[in-house]
Amino acid sequence: MFIVYNNIDHKNIHAPHGNILNTKGWSQEAALRLIINNLDPMVAKDPENLIVYGGKGKAARNSKAFDKIIESLKELENDETLLIQSGKSVGIFRTTRESPRVLIVNAQIVPRWATHDIFWDLEARGLTMFGQMTAGSWIYIGTQGVLQVTYETLNALARKIYHSDNLDGKWFLSAGLGEMGGAQTLAAKMNRCTSIIVEIDIEKIRRRLRDKYLDTYTDSLDEALKLKDESIKNGKHLSIGLLGNAATVYNELVNRNIIPDIVSDQTAAHDINLGYVPEGYDIKSFQKFREDNPEEFKRRVYESIVREVNAMIYFKNHGAAVFDYGNDIRTRALEGGLKNAFDIDGYVPAYIRDLFAIGSGPFRWVALSGNPDDIYKIDDAIIKNIDDRHLTDWIKLAKEYVHFQGLPARICYAPYGERERIGLMINDMVKNGDLEAPVAIGRDHHDTGSVASPYRETEAMKDGIIINNQAAAAKDLYNKIIGNYIQEG
Amino acid sequence: MFIVYNNIDHKNIHAPHGNILNTKGWSQEAALRLIINNLDPMVAKDPENLIVYGGKGKAARNSKAFDKIIESLKELENDETLLIQSGKSVGIFRTTRESPRVLIVNAQIVPRWATHDIFWDLEARGLTMFGQMTAGSWIYIGTQGVLQVTYETLNALARKIYHSDNLDGKWFLSAGLGEMGGAQTLAAKMNRCTSIIVEIDIEKIRRRLRDKYLDTYTDSLDEALKLKDESIKNGKHLSIGLLGNAATVYNELVNRNIIPDIVSDQTAAHDINLGYVPEGYDIKSFQKFREDNPEEFKRRVYESIVREVNAMIYFKNHGAAVFDYGNDIRTRALEGGLKNAFDIDGYVPAYIRDLFAIGSGPFRWVALSGNPDDIYKIDDAIIKNIDDRHLTDWIKLAKEYVHFQGLPARICYAPYGERERIGLMINDMVKNGDLEAPVAIGRDHHDTGSVASPYRETEAMKDGIIINNQAAAAKDLYNKIIGNYIQEG
Ligand SMILES: NC(=O)c1ccc[n+]([C@@H]2O[C@H](COP(=O)([O-])OP(=O)(O)OC[C@H]3O[C@@H](n4cnc5c(N)ncnc54)[C@H](O)[C@@H]3O)[C@@H](O)[C@H]2O)c1
Ligand SMILES: NC(=O)c1ccc[n+]([C@@H]2O[C@H](COP(=O)([O-])OP(=O)(O)OC[C@H]3O[C@@H](n4cnc5c(N)ncnc54)[C@H](O)[C@@H]3O)[C@@H](O)[C@H]2O)c1
Repeated sequence: MFIVYNNIDHKNIHAPHGNILNTKGWSQEAALRLIINNLDPMVAKDPENLIVYGGKGKAARNSKAFDKIIESLKELENDETLLIQSGKSVGIFRTTRESPRVLIVNAQIVPRWATHDIFWDLEARGLTMFGQMTAGSWIYIGTQGVLQVTYETLNALARKIYHSDNLDGKWFLSAGLGEMGGAQTLAAKMNRCTSIIVEIDIEKIRRRLRDKYLDTYTDSLDEALKLKDESIKNGKHLSIGLLGNAATVYNELVNRNIIPDIVSDQTAAHDINLGYVPEGYDIKSFQKFREDNPEEFKRRVYESIVREVNAMIYFKNHGAAVFDYGNDIRTRALEGGLKNAFDIDGYVPAYIRDLFAIGSGPFRWVALSGNPDDIYKIDDAIIKNIDDRHLTDWIKLAKEYVHFQGLPARICYAPYGERERIGLMINDMVKNGDLEAPVAIGRDHHDTGSVASPYRETEAMKDGIIINNQAAAAKDLYNKIIGNYIQEG
Repeated sequence: MFIVYNNIDHKNIHAPHGNILNTKGWSQEAALRLIINNLDPMVAKDPENLIVYGGKGKAARNSKAFDKIIESLKELENDETLLIQSGKSVGIFRTTRESPRVLIVNAQIVPRWATHDIFWDLEARGLTMFGQMTAGSWIYIGTQGVLQVTYETLNALARKIYHSDNLDGKWFLSAGLGEMGGAQTLAAKMNRCTSIIVEIDIEKIRRRLRDKYLDTYTDSLDEALKLKDESIKNGKHLSIGLLGNAATVYNELVNRNIIPDIVSDQTAAHDINLGYVPEGYDIKSFQKFREDNPEEFKRRVYESIVREVNAMIYFKNHGAAVFDYGNDIRTRALEGGLKNAFDIDGYVPAYIRDLFAIGSGPFRWVALSGNPDDIYKIDDAIIKNIDDRHLTDWIKLAKEYVHFQGLPARICYAPYGERERIGLMINDMVKNGDLEAPVAIGRDHHDTGSVASPYRETEAMKDGIIINNQAAAAKDLYNKIIGNYIQEG
């Protein structure tokens, strides 16, 4: 067990392990371990600045706010509720034992002012926080989360486009090996697909080589294409990192009329100020450019994004399966003047909504003990007791391929009814002392009624752009089984 | 007691009275009686179309949705929660006895699409509903609600501008005698102030004469001014309805250089399509104009609003206390091209925020029995037991002046701690059988942490335009004492 200090050095923190409480109950303890875990250097992208993943997605507003949250969680009674507003604790209320222990709401702005410029200005002035999807709700579990949904997306694509349950003999072009994007290579390999992923930052490539998400890398497109051809010829599923700029590489392929089978992008294009490196710059020089001349920088970012999306549309028109993977790159291209940016499909309506339609969605759990055996025991119990081939196949693949980051965790897509069954099963295991400590259960944004995002989760739905506010209204109903804190995008 | 039918004729409904349940518990019963009460012809503006007050503020999406809500409330168990989404029941979930019985969220749209045009288009297609402030949350109690806050606003103005606790010898010019606006005359009188209120609809004037909110009326400005002068000379506080168009009357006063002491407006200017009659039209011809030529109609509405607000600025520059009373008329004038529309103060920062600062805010309760004695007994208990002169003075005035509409109700502004005290007192009275039936407790939008409205509740606050999402996050904490359903704007 680790002692939690009030004044944590959050450059190098790790969630407490074991089964001794630092707080007044396991719900509070879950929240405490999860927020710390989200800033563990093994998990977070930039813990010093409290950034967990996805551009500037943070777990707390600033260091002081983080310390205060920890302090509040340690004080919190079992009939109280802590309110968190955009990464800051704003109050503790007496409620009931059945109430949520923690309620989190992030980054809400009155619609008329809800623009990028105003949001990032407020953020710079410390008045709000970008919570991404799971950072600000403390349920980020590292690359495994996105690995699973990327796996499901490519798997659904295989079924829909190639009428096969794998992608043998195909190749996948994408960009970005960041916190989430790094999962693309492994998700491709699990679907027996060769991949080339363009990344501008050599450090990101090195990290993915180290943790074996990437098999090899090169800074030459010719070399990458050669490796890809050999991989396919030999029935292999190599993952190849290509050091370079996505806009440049995609257009070079267009010039050579080389059409990949599958194309996407996972640069952090949603964040126009920080997420996308314009052509002609490297990871260092782009930072300086941005500081020296933010307006010109933005113009250049838009220019490159337009060029990249234009190439993606070319691939699509020449037979490739091309999809936007939720980083808003189509919207940025449209803002940049590319009128037909939305010719590209969104991955939700194109591929994974079929899963939502049967109630299948993300279900994730974290071993608060820090003990990997707790997760493996649950894996085994699922494989033994749950009669769902698609799900148990995934659990087996995950057991083989996934390296835990920070607190051990598992995610799977469980359909209607199965989440409850797995939750009750875990409940029993905790009760019977099979596990070292309780387990926190959560979910993410890929789910029915979770997020109203017209170009992602709710794209092309019948009621169009209305927020289906079940998400907000159903707060009380999530995570009832064990975890007792509530997440909201 | 009335029996509640599944298929209610909602043109002429009244909440069940007495202490026999139509549902499985008093929380459900409170919700059921309140939604019906909100559509009682004595309470609602246009019950046939489910409109309660404030432009098109509705209690339910449509008749079918209303019937379904009634049905759901009758089925709802004591450990279940009913979710209402923009006037439609969308699900019943098993929760706990301590959970809210009903959760309501209205009119949420993803910010980029949150414009008037898109909202009203969605509304017309039955995909959302405008819930106003208390209509969509079923806690509207008729004119008394706005009477109280208008009383407080004028009272605060008297103290701040005239260093007096009344407005003896002053006169107040305003417009609109609708559901909310009708309260202006009585609020002025309670502050010993003479008033002229311009209203375009003779029916509204008649209604206010009938219920004694208005003392007299005329269709001549000269006559109105004469009556006003006599009232002031004789130390009276006459309320005068003036049949006419606010833009026209205000500008005529400017032409004559007659400057009122206090000026405001309570036409439903927030709703550009329905709330404001343009100059040159009466209450009938404007409807036809709107249907025949909606674009030209809108242009004319903007034109009149700009003229009216321009006159208000003139009054301000010539010494009057002029305030926007929350109907967004400044925003509409700005949209219509009047650059300095925001020279006029908002009533919250100008006058009543001082009350919020000491935790004082709206506290309202409704006798579910339908028995006025229940309210009078609580009035007396407050006068006897609560040691707060400002509050007990108001209760005495309310007892004298307020006519109940639908279920008897009371509202007062109670500061921090006092709401709890009054709530517990009511609790005891219910427990001891002093009252015929339980009492529903609610609040409205004039409160700390209730609504983020940059030109009303949160105008000129330090953190500017950010939604202080305590409002959403604190859902669980409202109405805990007796009422157990949750309202949100
Ligand atoms: N669909 C989903 O489920 C899902 C899930 C997570 C994230 N996302 C989105 O995916 C995006 C990526 O997330 P992340 O956490 O990996 O972000 P990240 O910031 O960690 O990584 C982005 C990577 O892109 C690289 N990059 C930037 N510009 C480039 C360019 N022009 N060429 C090549 N490489 C470039 C950066 O060096 C960085 O490594 C985000 O926009 C995020 O919102 C979608
Ligand atoms: N500050 C607050 O607490 C508060 C409270 C309630 C309502 N409001 C706002 O006040 C406004 C009025 O609410 P309401 O419920 O009384 O609305 P309403 O629709 O019932 O009444 C509006 C009245 O204005 C009259 N009118 C319209 N145009 C006119 C014109 N040009 N000249 C003269 N009269 C005209 C209409 O005939 C109608 O009687 C709304 O915008 C509402 O949002 C503010």
